[in-house]
Amino acid sequence: MHLTDIDPVYIGTDLGGTNIVCGAVDSSGAVLVKIKRPTGAARGSRAIMADIAGMIAEVVGMVIAAGGSVAALGIGCPGIVDPERGVSIDSSNLSWRDVPVADELRRLTGLPVYVDNDVRMYVYGEALFGAGKGYSHVLGVTVGTGLASAFVQDGRPFYGSGYVAGELGHISLENIPYVCNCGKTGCFETAVSATGIVRQAVEQLRGGRESLLRARFGPEDGPGFSRLTAADVSDGFDDGDELCREVMARTGYLLGQALAIACMLFSPDVVIVGGGASQAGERLLGPARETLYAGILPVMRPRIELKTAVLTDDAGIIGSALSAARKLQL
Amino acid sequence: MHLTDIDPVYIGTDLGGTNIVCGAVDSSGAVLVKIKRPTGAARGSRAIMADIAGMIAEVVGMVIAAGGSVAALGIGCPGIVDPERGVSIDSSNLSWRDVPVADELRRLTGLPVYVDNDVRMYVYGEALFGAGKGYSHVLGVTVGTGLASAFVQDGRPFYGSGYVAGELGHISLENIPYVCNCGKTGCFETAVSATGIVRQAVEQLRGGRESLLRARFGPEDGPGFSRLTAADVSDGFDDGDELCREVMARTGYLLGQALAIACMLFSPDVVIVGGGASQAGERLLGPARETLYAGILPVMRPRIELKTAVLTDDAGIIGSALSAARKLQL
Repeated sequence: MHLTDIDPVYIGTDLGGTNIVCGAVDSSGAVLVKIKRPTGAARGSRAIMADIAGMIAEVVGMVIAAGGSVAALGIGCPGIVDPERGVSIDSSNLSWRDVPVADELRRLTGLPVYVDNDVRMYVYGEALFGAGKGYSHVLGVTVGTGLASAFVQDGRPFYGSGYVAGELGHISLENIPYVCNCGKTGCFETAVSATGIVRQAVEQLRGGRESLLRARFGPEDGPGFSRLTAADVSDGFDDGDELCREVMARTGYLLGQALAIACMLFSPDVVIVGGGASQAGERLLGPARETLYAGILPVMRPRIELKTAVLTDDAGIIGSALSAARKLQL
Repeated sequence: MHLTDIDPVYIGTDLGGTNIVCGAVDSSGAVLVKIKRPTGAARGSRAIMADIAGMIAEVVGMVIAAGGSVAALGIGCPGIVDPERGVSIDSSNLSWRDVPVADELRRLTGLPVYVDNDVRMYVYGEALFGAGKGYSHVLGVTVGTGLASAFVQDGRPFYGSGYVAGELGHISLENIPYVCNCGKTGCFETAVSATGIVRQAVEQLRGGRESLLRARFGPEDGPGFSRLTAADVSDGFDDGDELCREVMARTGYLLGQALAIACMLFSPDVVIVGGGASQAGERLLGPARETLYAGILPVMRPRIELKTAVLTDDAGIIGSALSAARKLQL
């Protein structure tokens, strides 16, 4: 990397329950350098913040060594975030409550710090430089451990009151029977997520259904089933297993219902599906597409495109870095 | 009315399937004068536009006679509207398609004309000077012949791509069995509307249910039932009729589900329920409130207020007049 300080660089950090990814991004959205470390979520916020500050120092060092300069830091945190005060209000993933992320990282790094929600930053990154590039109204949905969404209009994320807009994963329907971590029953993410795919498969197995999974993982009340993942159900789909096919079809159908609901209210130009479980590709997106287009108004059908995310790990880094760039200029 | 031309007046017009309401509004949101005429929707767009121009001329005449001056005209039209081109793209209520409302009314009145969707203007009026006054994020829902919604943030209506955001009434669920005019099955408005209330009551009567309605309107396949209205079901509720109570409870429950879905995505500070069927008051809002608050995230519950609209007929006039005022200044 060869840089000049004419075009400053922004640090983007994606703080997840499993990993922290930290990178340097230029104003064209290029990721210049990137490092990744395990979060060690159980250690509490002080230790994690110190680690993040260490990673940032490392990336800043690389930028400076290459002749560049860092203008600001953006970080995406899971859960509810107040971007104005820079506080992580509530993250069940990290067991954080009212952690003053911006103040702490400003103190540790000396940089201007902007904090936002991780999914909002992921979708912001995809909207600016990924699958949403060139579209005015971008709806992004991540299907991972949970189901989350964000909406970006003309390069501005939509926040809603309390910065909690886009809670697609916790919309609850009568036709979903599972109890959610949030306390409600029937939330989309209890079915449309990696954990939801496993939940549905295990429910079927417990009901006595035949499946390749039984041979592969042992009896459903045995220790083998605790290792069952959404990827195994996806593999079972490929091997023609009826149970796995039904679970993926049902999950795709419910994803399509969720997307249709969000499209009817936000009216996007493009819907971007990302997150780990989206790696199941057409196994989920096939039925999701069909349900989405059947569920929206005819006038919307030719207008809305359904795409998969393209930036993977980089979306959150690019989003939080360039959100920091934008806020620095406001 | 005594006016000066220092503070100009704006004309607001609400074009409905049944009535046209046209009034003069000052910049403080006060309705100075208002006239109402039947739409006569079957006559086609030319005759209706000529009538509207006549009503506007009448109102403008009154404003001028009182010493004031008119700066612009705003009109809310049902269906899909392109506010940039000022065209009514599609209105099933009026059987309109691609009617150049702004051009035509500009030619007939000589005023600057701004066209928008009727529900968006209704909610805009309530947001500025009605039940939403003082709130940043306003979700408005009208329960009338159909079910519609709009979202206003910091005094700006939310449009979405193609100006079709907020289609709450056409979100479809598995637990609603009715075929909608839009071609889909299970749209909220097939149940949550004046027509939906009647539909549910008639369905129950056809199923052989006992009810006061049977004595009042004759056999369900006779001519009497074509006169049954949502107000009759509401009256039956007050008379303790079990069927009517069930229909109102189910409608309120589904309204609450619809509101919860919209709140989860938009995260408003206030939800305003208006429209003709909202006159059923607590008969609908009781179960709707319960379902709404059960269906949203705990963090949203203390934040979101549920209110009834307060401006009735005036909301659409105030909204379209002051939207015109705002656009004139842009």
